[in-house]
Amino acid sequence: MNAKFAVIFKAQLKAVDPSYHDTAARMRQKAIEDYGCLNFVSVNENNQEISISYWESEQAILNWKSDPEHQDAQQKGASRWYRNYTVEVVELKRAYSFNN
Amino acid sequence: MNAKFAVIFKAQLKAVDPSYHDTAARMRQKAIEDYGCLNFVSVNENNQEISISYWESEQAILNWKSDPEHQDAQQKGASRWYRNYTVEVVELKRAYSFNN
Repeated sequence: MNAKFAVIFKAQLKAVDPSYHDTAARMRQKAIEDYGCLNFVSVNENNQEISISYWESEQAILNWKSDPEHQDAQQKGASRWYRNYTVEVVELKRAYSFNN
Repeated sequence: MNAKFAVIFKAQLKAVDPSYHDTAARMRQKAIEDYGCLNFVSVNENNQEISISYWESEQAILNWKSDPEHQDAQQKGASRWYRNYTVEVVELKRAYSFNN
């Protein structure tokens, strides 16, 4: 199945505790196993995070957004871990790769 | 001017030398000053890089892609700095932000 959409999540973290990593790992697993998330990449440098998830449809993104456990995690993110964040839903137009 | 498109660049770096950072900074400046790049974010962790540039049009992306100095930098990237990379051109559908 090819990804047609992606969600770009960019954040400034204010504080990270063990529960942040546990929650992030659990959410990633749940998105992939239960909501059809096709791929997930995340890079973190000096409290700046970019995470991108890939999806087949916008509906799948909306389904995942409204998952109760995910909503609880978003709540915790806003109150506990993130100084600010931006979420961008995008449609993939074209892609190319290079491999050495 | 609002960004309507973005380019997601994901890479594994194999080796980074001072010329990598110089070139990256110069390319970023040129994209913004001469080609209308609206925003640029980059995060690097353990040789994994995600960079995202934002644009008003696909034509602006194509113009920047064919800039001779940028093409030279891409050549160097492939031969010297990157183990592999993926470029995805995407269209922004919707976005929202949270700020503490």
